[in-house]
Amino acid sequence: MAQGEPIDLAERQDDLEDRLKGAVDAGDANAIAALLEPLPLSDALREVLNLAAGDRDAVLSLLPAELAAGLIEEAPNAMATDLVERLSAARAAEIIDELDSDVQADLIGELDREDADAILARMDAGDAAEVRRLVEYDDDTAGGLMVAEAFSFPDSATVGAVLRDFVSGDEDFERYRGQHPYIVDVDGRPVGVVSLRGLLTARRGALLSSIMVPPLTVRTDTPLLELQDIFDEHPFLGLPVVDAQGLLVGALSRSAVDAAALEQAEGVNLKLQGIVGDELRSMPLGIRSRRRLAWLSANIVLNIIAASVIAAYEETLAAVIAIAIFLPMVSDMSGCSGNQAVAVTMRELALGLVRPADALRVWVKEASVGVINGLALGCLIGVVAWIWKENAWLGLVIGLALALNTVIAVSIGGVVPLMLKRIGQDPAVASGPLLTTITDMAGFFLVLSLASLMMPLLVR
Amino acid sequence: MAQGEPIDLAERQDDLEDRLKGAVDAGDANAIAALLEPLPLSDALREVLNLAAGDRDAVLSLLPAELAAGLIEEAPNAMATDLVERLSAARAAEIIDELDSDVQADLIGELDREDADAILARMDAGDAAEVRRLVEYDDDTAGGLMVAEAFSFPDSATVGAVLRDFVSGDEDFERYRGQHPYIVDVDGRPVGVVSLRGLLTARRGALLSSIMVPPLTVRTDTPLLELQDIFDEHPFLGLPVVDAQGLLVGALSRSAVDAAALEQAEGVNLKLQGIVGDELRSMPLGIRSRRRLAWLSANIVLNIIAASVIAAYEETLAAVIAIAIFLPMVSDMSGCSGNQAVAVTMRELALGLVRPADALRVWVKEASVGVINGLALGCLIGVVAWIWKENAWLGLVIGLALALNTVIAVSIGGVVPLMLKRIGQDPAVASGPLLTTITDMAGFFLVLSLASLMMPLLVR
Repeated sequence: MAQGEPIDLAERQDDLEDRLKGAVDAGDANAIAALLEPLPLSDALREVLNLAAGDRDAVLSLLPAELAAGLIEEAPNAMATDLVERLSAARAAEIIDELDSDVQADLIGELDREDADAILARMDAGDAAEVRRLVEYDDDTAGGLMVAEAFSFPDSATVGAVLRDFVSGDEDFERYRGQHPYIVDVDGRPVGVVSLRGLLTARRGALLSSIMVPPLTVRTDTPLLELQDIFDEHPFLGLPVVDAQGLLVGALSRSAVDAAALEQAEGVNLKLQGIVGDELRSMPLGIRSRRRLAWLSANIVLNIIAASVIAAYEETLAAVIAIAIFLPMVSDMSGCSGNQAVAVTMRELALGLVRPADALRVWVKEASVGVINGLALGCLIGVVAWIWKENAWLGLVIGLALALNTVIAVSIGGVVPLMLKRIGQDPAVASGPLLTTITDMAGFFLVLSLASLMMPLLVR
Repeated sequence: MAQGEPIDLAERQDDLEDRLKGAVDAGDANAIAALLEPLPLSDALREVLNLAAGDRDAVLSLLPAELAAGLIEEAPNAMATDLVERLSAARAAEIIDELDSDVQADLIGELDREDADAILARMDAGDAAEVRRLVEYDDDTAGGLMVAEAFSFPDSATVGAVLRDFVSGDEDFERYRGQHPYIVDVDGRPVGVVSLRGLLTARRGALLSSIMVPPLTVRTDTPLLELQDIFDEHPFLGLPVVDAQGLLVGALSRSAVDAAALEQAEGVNLKLQGIVGDELRSMPLGIRSRRRLAWLSANIVLNIIAASVIAAYEETLAAVIAIAIFLPMVSDMSGCSGNQAVAVTMRELALGLVRPADALRVWVKEASVGVINGLALGCLIGVVAWIWKENAWLGLVIGLALALNTVIAVSIGGVVPLMLKRIGQDPAVASGPLLTTITDMAGFFLVLSLASLMMPLLVR
């Protein structure tokens, strides 16, 4: 794949689309698989999502279960749920059976109770029980990210037993990739971990307990940010997960933690724009429209509240109509400055570099930037207003208002996400509307009240 | 760590800060290490970044090189560069020596030529040569993400040689974690890879060439998105990287790819707000202010252009002053709708689900949402304007303008990032300002030109 000649992607693309559509229309399972199998999963998923919803269902019904499972796993959560819901319970169970237990639990947890039960009833009873257990854990915790299968041995086992297990390589062995063998006592508590080097240098008859070292464990409720820290600090590819009683309940891989962090980061920007619960353009129009509209409607109400400040000063506006030119500018520029502060705080939160308790420190840092940038932007817009309208006092009003409002905007933008976090709200969802409303109101008020005060100088 | 009782973080925090400051003032290297060593790296980094710049330098000079290296690696790129630049070349070389070669290259590549040469001159000659080679590769390609050290053996070697290497465990062995042993021919071309199972079941005297399977390789110029695809599809923890001649030049780990994807996702939101090149609040005020201001100044010029539309209609405004209340509202709401479309496109780009060639398809999808949401929001604001100002025609003007402008905003928001990508620009940096300027101009024009047309009905 890496050594192929560059080819005309767009052309191949159109051709592929037509052929895929043709194969779906003909209900030709082999042809569909032959078209999608050679593609990277993200390309195959794109092709499938570009089909009409009914054709998509047909593809997922006809593909080999393993490839269908790959597509489901590649799809973002909300999309994956949508795709599974549209399948028959039997087919869904068949596809889900191909996935790791953590992915199974994520999917099942998102489904309606009824759909979930129907699918679980068609799965292997043991697997279904495992999924029911995993579903109980919060998404972004070790419990929600682990697989239920841990590569464990009793402390009474020998080195030879582990090596035989390596070598026999039953199908499930794949799932342990990257895990070290965990050693548990009779109660099921992890008491040790053995290294590959230890296994290779020890006699086959040696007890595991003689070569093991104490294990690093995480609890089912350890949150994602802490898990990222632990994997940053330790080179392990996986860790044993214990419950509140200290019993081994699963294994957490480094890549599951990485994937969860990536998904979270990719979702933040959608949430900041008020799209909660994911959106892909292949979703039904009604859902996409509704998800965006919920936040926009709330926002328009806040906008109306902010605009009422302008309404209160209609007389001032009527007297100095030029101010109307600058009102949207002050509101937009303050919003931009405030959103920069929001973005920096959101990033520092994601990196664990700032906490709600740091609000005061953040405010001082933001206010400093606000003063400098406020002065710079205020002077710029002030001079423009002065020259444009040939009135230095107008320039002063607009420039001063923007300067002050920039300080307000960055203060709010920097601190609001921290306060939302402290009260347990998702800062990504609510920061934007709160910020814009307050800075709009403050901006309008500053411009118009300053203008009222200086009215005799502005009207000539 | 996972089983500790909850403690009062804020209190511990203040105490820790004071003690760290005290240890730094006393120049007590042991005390500093004792305070920072037990913390998760992200917490330790936060503590260090909270110090004044001079104290930060002191901490990095006094800490054991390994811990200092951990902090440098934990810090986002721009911050890491800043921290290293402030150290003496000798100390910087000592710390950098503790890092993997891919991280070394990232750091050295960001430094001034002069600083970089000074540090390289103080590093081991072989390591320095390796870094000079790695620096040449683009950041988000296999070459930029790989480590130069591959776990490779000649095809003439035996199984026993590999097992001895596992067991002898020299210091460098850590670096190969997760890699399978790659087998190269006499020219240095990877010709095979052997599994752990293969190694354990074969006779010690067997040639590696007798148990190897053909390797999956990537080229140094394979881009990040494609690498993510490859690791999604294959369970491997690492892959051999070859140059244009097919020679083995390094090894790429799954976690390096994951980390690069995460860093990219976390940077997008900063870029969308016009903060190019990273920002952490611990950076010097001047840099933070300048980085934000560059984009804000460009934005204010665009705002002035948009506002000139209002200026052209001053007479209309003077006649129906109530319109001034609704202008910022139309501009803000359209901006929000457009930014939602930008966010969805940016996410689909990151997931590889959309490409520049899909612009038409994206436009159709966006326009559909735009029509629905435009009608909904237009009706809402229209009714508000009607009731507030007791003028149905005013409601019609404002509502119609917002409805039309919503369609324009989502169309632009959805498609602009794709067009920027096509012409090789970073869509995250330029999408926002382009979107806002065009939707502001269109919004102002729609409101004011509709009002001009219907002037007799509006003025009563």
